[in-house]
Amino acid sequence: MPSVIQSTPRADGYRMPAEWEAHAGCWMLWPQRPDTWRQGGKPAQRAFVEAARQISRFERVTMGVNRDQYENARALLPANVRVVELSNNDAWMRDCGATFVVNDSGGLRGIDWRFNAWGGLRKMMYFPWDQDDLVATKMLEIESLDRYHAPLVMEGGSIHVDGQGTLLTTEQCLLHPNRNPGLAQADIEKRLSEYLGVDKIIWLPRGVFEDETDGHVDNLCCFARPGVVALTWTDDRSDPQYERSAEAYDALMSARDARGRSLSVHKIHQPAPLTMTKAEAEGLDVVGSAFSRPAGERLAGSYINFYIANGGIILPQFDDRHDEAARRKIAELFPQHKIIGISSREILLGGGNIHCITQQQPAGRA
Amino acid sequence: MPSVIQSTPRADGYRMPAEWEAHAGCWMLWPQRPDTWRQGGKPAQRAFVEAARQISRFERVTMGVNRDQYENARALLPANVRVVELSNNDAWMRDCGATFVVNDSGGLRGIDWRFNAWGGLRKMMYFPWDQDDLVATKMLEIESLDRYHAPLVMEGGSIHVDGQGTLLTTEQCLLHPNRNPGLAQADIEKRLSEYLGVDKIIWLPRGVFEDETDGHVDNLCCFARPGVVALTWTDDRSDPQYERSAEAYDALMSARDARGRSLSVHKIHQPAPLTMTKAEAEGLDVVGSAFSRPAGERLAGSYINFYIANGGIILPQFDDRHDEAARRKIAELFPQHKIIGISSREILLGGGNIHCITQQQPAGRA
Repeated sequence: MPSVIQSTPRADGYRMPAEWEAHAGCWMLWPQRPDTWRQGGKPAQRAFVEAARQISRFERVTMGVNRDQYENARALLPANVRVVELSNNDAWMRDCGATFVVNDSGGLRGIDWRFNAWGGLRKMMYFPWDQDDLVATKMLEIESLDRYHAPLVMEGGSIHVDGQGTLLTTEQCLLHPNRNPGLAQADIEKRLSEYLGVDKIIWLPRGVFEDETDGHVDNLCCFARPGVVALTWTDDRSDPQYERSAEAYDALMSARDARGRSLSVHKIHQPAPLTMTKAEAEGLDVVGSAFSRPAGERLAGSYINFYIANGGIILPQFDDRHDEAARRKIAELFPQHKIIGISSREILLGGGNIHCITQQQPAGRA
Repeated sequence: MPSVIQSTPRADGYRMPAEWEAHAGCWMLWPQRPDTWRQGGKPAQRAFVEAARQISRFERVTMGVNRDQYENARALLPANVRVVELSNNDAWMRDCGATFVVNDSGGLRGIDWRFNAWGGLRKMMYFPWDQDDLVATKMLEIESLDRYHAPLVMEGGSIHVDGQGTLLTTEQCLLHPNRNPGLAQADIEKRLSEYLGVDKIIWLPRGVFEDETDGHVDNLCCFARPGVVALTWTDDRSDPQYERSAEAYDALMSARDARGRSLSVHKIHQPAPLTMTKAEAEGLDVVGSAFSRPAGERLAGSYINFYIANGGIILPQFDDRHDEAARRKIAELFPQHKIIGISSREILLGGGNIHCITQQQPAGRA
């Protein structure tokens, strides 16, 4: 019987598993708002369909859709993708959706974080975000899973875990006044620890250059397995990303994880600098209450923003000369996974990539 | 993998089970439209909460809710009721929702009938009904169940089955030009037979007096078990319901079911004539595109409009002198079930009762 639990996951013996642990499936949201997604969302919808199709080769995919796009989404998505009505203000399931925790006896529960659209009225990515903030509750209700309401403004894209007690995040994001200005770093650490069951938090300074999320870690680096991290990289010292990746590299190399291991860090060279074209920018609605995305703006392209499905990796590709090297390196880091590259520029134009639009539901039962 | 099946349930070995066969759960929709439900829907919402609470003692209840009422519904319903977003134009799950069919090896599928809000533009109960017509698809998507799209305009309240090949319906409803004016009776019989797996259709002339649905059978009579029918009744020959019940009685007594049995018919005396008060009528929004419900109008009250849950019956009660007799007679007809009476006047004021706002999902798997 689903209900809101007043204790914390750690107190109840739950922890957030690593993304490579077994999934029951993957959740996504359907893109449509015309101030985020060009041409009325149609190119992005095709890209989301392709992402869903590829993920559904490995695990069940559930697509949440606003009511006015339900029939269109149902018509465009493969039959094996479950389509549910799930109102949202935009399509970033990683950030507004539930985070799941498991225990040692197969139990599964959800965490509903506070969501303020990456900075509330300070940042004004868009307004309002009331439906996004209900997404986590609604997905957990559909699954009849108990949930915790965590007293922390946070997005799923701002954390990565190794499943063995270690969490990666960035100071730029989780210490930004956009989220929890009343909480000290120690308070934030305590809440992450209580809700995710982690013992060690590795703070990296900054995320990817021009990342709209205040530097989410999931565009910068991730665990490939415990003790092993993949990091977006450039060898071009004149690129503003260079110092960001270099300082993250130094922080990772000097860190120890929750079990006292040092980390092995694998550099994944970023795509060549990508910018929004004039034609792309002109496809966006101009709306005062939404983040401006002008032509010529640098896009926060990174191969790190992939999704790990059961036995497969869905990897961003940019028709870039670094695409193949990224595929090869990720394949080396995930020898048990099939690597599926998909063209994700249309997702990137909206401000994120494949990891940002997905959320794994671990295997487990209520 | 859910998908739309192009064959028919009968061809695939599926049949509609009787309502007393094992359920996985019960589906409902949240009432809110202020031209159907007085006082902004608040009294009806309390009645629906009580119905959901009682049904949830016996089986899982899922409540589908429009997005603007989601938080309120989640707050008012017990924690063990699953609340999902499910846009609708009104709350008659029996009529707009899926009908389920099962096979002998535990398979479960859904039927999505065509829905035109009890008569489309001819009848104008309300306009539009586009969201109601998507309810069946959406509930089957949530459950990941395959579905048939049946080429017949029909509501779930217009049929009852014994699970052994017999179907009860009324000529008033299923032959009414409000629904399938291009189909002859034989065509309608053939489609009911193909989609519900029934072999014998017993046509009763008319439904309950002033029933807004063109005389749905589920307010008039129902099977209690194969060969046994409960029928709403009055002994008052001056009541316009008398001849309707009497002609149904005659039709039932002269019928044979699919297995050649004659029927035993049990009369359940109706409540004393109920009418909408002036205060109740004044609580309704006046909207040109909605059915008029004036003060003084006779309400189609009937004890037959109950819901059979796993081991329980949720029975309408009207604070009427016939309530106790109805409870006692239903208890005699369902000796294995616990009889739960709930005050359902607020549901009746909207035009239906407990059976109209529920839909059982039989036990089974995709």
